[in-house]
Amino acid sequence: MGYEELTIEGRNAVLEAYRAGKTIDKLYVLKGCQDGPVNSILREARKHDTIVSFVAKERLDQMSETGKHQGVVAHAAAYEYAEVEDILKRAEEKGEPPFLILLDNIEDPHNLGAIIRTANLAGAHGIIIPRRRAAGLTATVAKASAGALNYTLVAKVTNLGTTIESLKERGLWFVCADMDGTVMYDLDLKGPIGLVVGNEGEGVSRLVREKCDYIAAIPMKGDIDSLNASVAAGVLAYEIVRQRIC
Amino acid sequence: MGYEELTIEGRNAVLEAYRAGKTIDKLYVLKGCQDGPVNSILREARKHDTIVSFVAKERLDQMSETGKHQGVVAHAAAYEYAEVEDILKRAEEKGEPPFLILLDNIEDPHNLGAIIRTANLAGAHGIIIPRRRAAGLTATVAKASAGALNYTLVAKVTNLGTTIESLKERGLWFVCADMDGTVMYDLDLKGPIGLVVGNEGEGVSRLVREKCDYIAAIPMKGDIDSLNASVAAGVLAYEIVRQRIC
Repeated sequence: MGYEELTIEGRNAVLEAYRAGKTIDKLYVLKGCQDGPVNSILREARKHDTIVSFVAKERLDQMSETGKHQGVVAHAAAYEYAEVEDILKRAEEKGEPPFLILLDNIEDPHNLGAIIRTANLAGAHGIIIPRRRAAGLTATVAKASAGALNYTLVAKVTNLGTTIESLKERGLWFVCADMDGTVMYDLDLKGPIGLVVGNEGEGVSRLVREKCDYIAAIPMKGDIDSLNASVAAGVLAYEIVRQRIC
Repeated sequence: MGYEELTIEGRNAVLEAYRAGKTIDKLYVLKGCQDGPVNSILREARKHDTIVSFVAKERLDQMSETGKHQGVVAHAAAYEYAEVEDILKRAEEKGEPPFLILLDNIEDPHNLGAIIRTANLAGAHGIIIPRRRAAGLTATVAKASAGALNYTLVAKVTNLGTTIESLKERGLWFVCADMDGTVMYDLDLKGPIGLVVGNEGEGVSRLVREKCDYIAAIPMKGDIDSLNASVAAGVLAYEIVRQRIC
């Protein structure tokens, strides 16, 4: 496990973190602050596509552990994100057709942790999450993953749609879950595959859905609309496992 | 939804709640308090197998919403528990072989909610939980169930092992999940079945496990020990669904 979320404070510390290649999940900068060092930090933030929030001094004071934030607080993942390429390489090393899980804006860190756990045990080669709007790899996620985060590659991409397009060129098929799809037992899910799991409330977004080759439906007999997102991911991931085994 | 957890305070109110047949999940009584009315309440508590905690005045003051607890605070489920018989009856009405999910001490209310949601959508006829040590039907559970609690029968029993024994006499088979079991795809899960899901940390307890007819293993390829309990329940429940459909 050994995972910890880091709060990095102060101008030099944050700039150093960027230069050392640390993944900064979020950057908080004092509203109106525009001097040289802060501008250097903002340049790095743009380069690394970090989400930046400009906030009031009170907010920074609250987040600060040392009380010496100098107008800059960063949240870093002690966990290092992988590249999509690393995930494909892992599949190749194992001599297996790639099996990726893409998360279209999972927001609940418990769900994200549970899905990482599932990905590990179902033998998926890695997970792809979007840079924006989704839960990042926080300490809560690490805990909910029950240690799986240490063994599972997680890549962060700017645009899930673009990533799907480029992975299609590498021979992957994409399947997402939706009620109006084909019952999953009737789909062939054996080849190189990317399983797309949608947001807790809204499901898979239209743009991502349109890029998928198949839409898989989990049979539903009940009175409510949908399974919990991590349960749905587990049921679909294991249908892929079943088809690969049987 | 319309589910609410009720705090009932004061001697008459709590006694009335018992007499009206309300399900009291937990009863808190002032330590050392032993007069007539309190003894009547404790008698009802014993009769209904309520979990009783004897606590200090400060604790009761904290829980109290009105400030007038008179040494007695009860937590009641607005949701009414079903009887095991009701669950079997529902299966019969639908003309389906019974499909029950038994939870051997699920502690996390989010897991319990997610499993109720799964039970509803997988077409299980009801859930059985043990009276002691497990999460009850609190407001958190209701929320995590996404409304499924309103449509899903949940029965509370004193002893899961005894319940399994008596359901076996009614023709049900019982399957629990464990790593050293038979791969679930190789088991016949089509008939009248009770699926037993274990506790988050310890799995299925030995006594309950010994009463099961089959032990089912979810295939695991990864580096960690087990799936999240609600994901495991979902994967197994849907293997039962698949076998019943296909």
